[in-house]
Amino acid sequence: MNGPIRPTGVASITASLISTASPSEVGCVPKKESRQNIPTKKQLVDPFRQGVIIEGGVGYRQTVVIRSYEVGADKTATLESIFNLLQETALNHVWVSGLLGDGFGATHGMMRNNLIWVVTKMQVQVDNYPIWGEIMEVETWVGASGKNGMRRDWLIRSHATGQVYTCDSTWVMMNKKTRRLSKMPEEVRAEISPWFIEKHAIQEDTPEKINKLDPKAKYVNKDLKPTRSDLDMNHHVNNVKYVKWMLETIPDMFLESHQLSSIILEYRRECGSSDIVQSLCEPDEGGLLEDGAQNDNGINRLTEISLATEGFEGCSYKKSPLRYTHLLQITGETKNEEIVRGRTTWERK
Amino acid sequence: MNGPIRPTGVASITASLISTASPSEVGCVPKKESRQNIPTKKQLVDPFRQGVIIEGGVGYRQTVVIRSYEVGADKTATLESIFNLLQETALNHVWVSGLLGDGFGATHGMMRNNLIWVVTKMQVQVDNYPIWGEIMEVETWVGASGKNGMRRDWLIRSHATGQVYTCDSTWVMMNKKTRRLSKMPEEVRAEISPWFIEKHAIQEDTPEKINKLDPKAKYVNKDLKPTRSDLDMNHHVNNVKYVKWMLETIPDMFLESHQLSSIILEYRRECGSSDIVQSLCEPDEGGLLEDGAQNDNGINRLTEISLATEGFEGCSYKKSPLRYTHLLQITGETKNEEIVRGRTTWERK
Repeated sequence: MNGPIRPTGVASITASLISTASPSEVGCVPKKESRQNIPTKKQLVDPFRQGVIIEGGVGYRQTVVIRSYEVGADKTATLESIFNLLQETALNHVWVSGLLGDGFGATHGMMRNNLIWVVTKMQVQVDNYPIWGEIMEVETWVGASGKNGMRRDWLIRSHATGQVYTCDSTWVMMNKKTRRLSKMPEEVRAEISPWFIEKHAIQEDTPEKINKLDPKAKYVNKDLKPTRSDLDMNHHVNNVKYVKWMLETIPDMFLESHQLSSIILEYRRECGSSDIVQSLCEPDEGGLLEDGAQNDNGINRLTEISLATEGFEGCSYKKSPLRYTHLLQITGETKNEEIVRGRTTWERK
Repeated sequence: MNGPIRPTGVASITASLISTASPSEVGCVPKKESRQNIPTKKQLVDPFRQGVIIEGGVGYRQTVVIRSYEVGADKTATLESIFNLLQETALNHVWVSGLLGDGFGATHGMMRNNLIWVVTKMQVQVDNYPIWGEIMEVETWVGASGKNGMRRDWLIRSHATGQVYTCDSTWVMMNKKTRRLSKMPEEVRAEISPWFIEKHAIQEDTPEKINKLDPKAKYVNKDLKPTRSDLDMNHHVNNVKYVKWMLETIPDMFLESHQLSSIILEYRRECGSSDIVQSLCEPDEGGLLEDGAQNDNGINRLTEISLATEGFEGCSYKKSPLRYTHLLQITGETKNEEIVRGRTTWERK
């Protein structure tokens, strides 16, 4: 709980809608009857997407309601739904900016240079998942990442409780034809750098390295094949599918009693429609230690394990490691190729 | 193309929002800080869901924008997304009606009687799928179906083109504990019958029977297992998963060159999380005949087949049947049990 909703919350979006809601006034609906209507100039408000430009003209906030099909059996939003909402609001940010060319968030300058965005890292932290029907505000903004990259951050805030979830990501550009990473061309820098701000959703220390799992990992799902519906507009396997594959490799018994509280993904290469994928995961003993460290009762790790081993009632669950390391890789004839490494941390439900 | 947008389109929703958009005014946000806020009285407008009551106070219309993750590789909305939007708007209709108890669209009276809704039939007709970013208005309403059932219809209309997609469904009530179908209790009839109108989205002649496929069907996918993420709030395999399983059984080559134009589903029994499922499908020679009948050139079926057999260039595609019959069944030890029968019709892309 982070206190009540800020004064700049949903109410102010609604207020913006009141003053500018007529489509003809905000310029979202051009005279030409086009079905998509991607704006070519910056829009301050998008009443249809319930979006509004914030942060002195460079950030974006959108109101979303958690839909019935975005929740799982426990009526809370699935992690997949949260990834979907991150993607959606990021693209809508580019949409209202007037910079969106065709394709998946590429600007006009990127289109001219045959460039697409490629995500290299993504991090999501979620406590107390949103529930069906909950009204959320998603804020997103971009900033510089090194010389040629971009970072994108998100804050997701519950309208009712003020609870905040934080996410960030880093992106680079890839040549669509050569599939090689590219420097940021000056014309693209000129388009996007005016939108950059220096603000981080997640204040992190040096992030811990994610080790590469070897084939002897504790849990392995083999022969995973993308289906047609897993492909996005770029004909690549969608990010959300990666997350599904990773989580499905964790034993059901663990998933039933635990809730994911954070995930970090480090992307290595693309996965195409004909690739055969392996999902590996390994419980992380470090997670156990960390869990013990967080124990309010001050029981240290050794005591816990000892109690657990003895079957001390109510303490045996302490045995579950609360971190997993993940790897998705493409099964090759001679060698496997890494798609993405991941780390998930979990809390007991 | 069904002509330009009606005067009662999105603009009027926006107008309603202008006059009533302050959450405190429309009564959607009670003083109590609850995360879900299911209304207990009828709401004429829901600004967060972009919904409004229509049809003299009993129908519901919601504006939705086709999201980036709702489209497939061809940038048009997937059939799964359309099913999701139907479910979402139906539930939001019940939500604003003030009748929603807990659970999946069950009214307060249904909750008291331990009843849940069970769909028995669903039909969707789609030409020219919506595209990414397209603004759609979904209208939905309910009516009587026989003595104990309810029908629910939908019209989905493109804001830009006026193009209309039509859908309908029939529902009965099931006792949550005994899992047996139930009559409609008088207290439930009193709740929902004031919302009934006599209006059909799809004007149909007597619908053709869907035959039960036998195990020798041309295409069979075996050993399908629901994953955790396929379960809905009722802990049953989601409708959308059924559709995915059905479509994935059709050969990729056909799916790449064809687009689904209609689907009818007849539901027989529930599918639980531990069931092992088979998806059968069979191309329907009747579809070929129908295709011939629709041929503008007046070439009859026999001619087409003959041309196709001879490899007459440009006509060989006529060989593809344009209808499929489907069956999903639970693999049992002694016998299989039907989950759903289906029929799909297709057009060339």
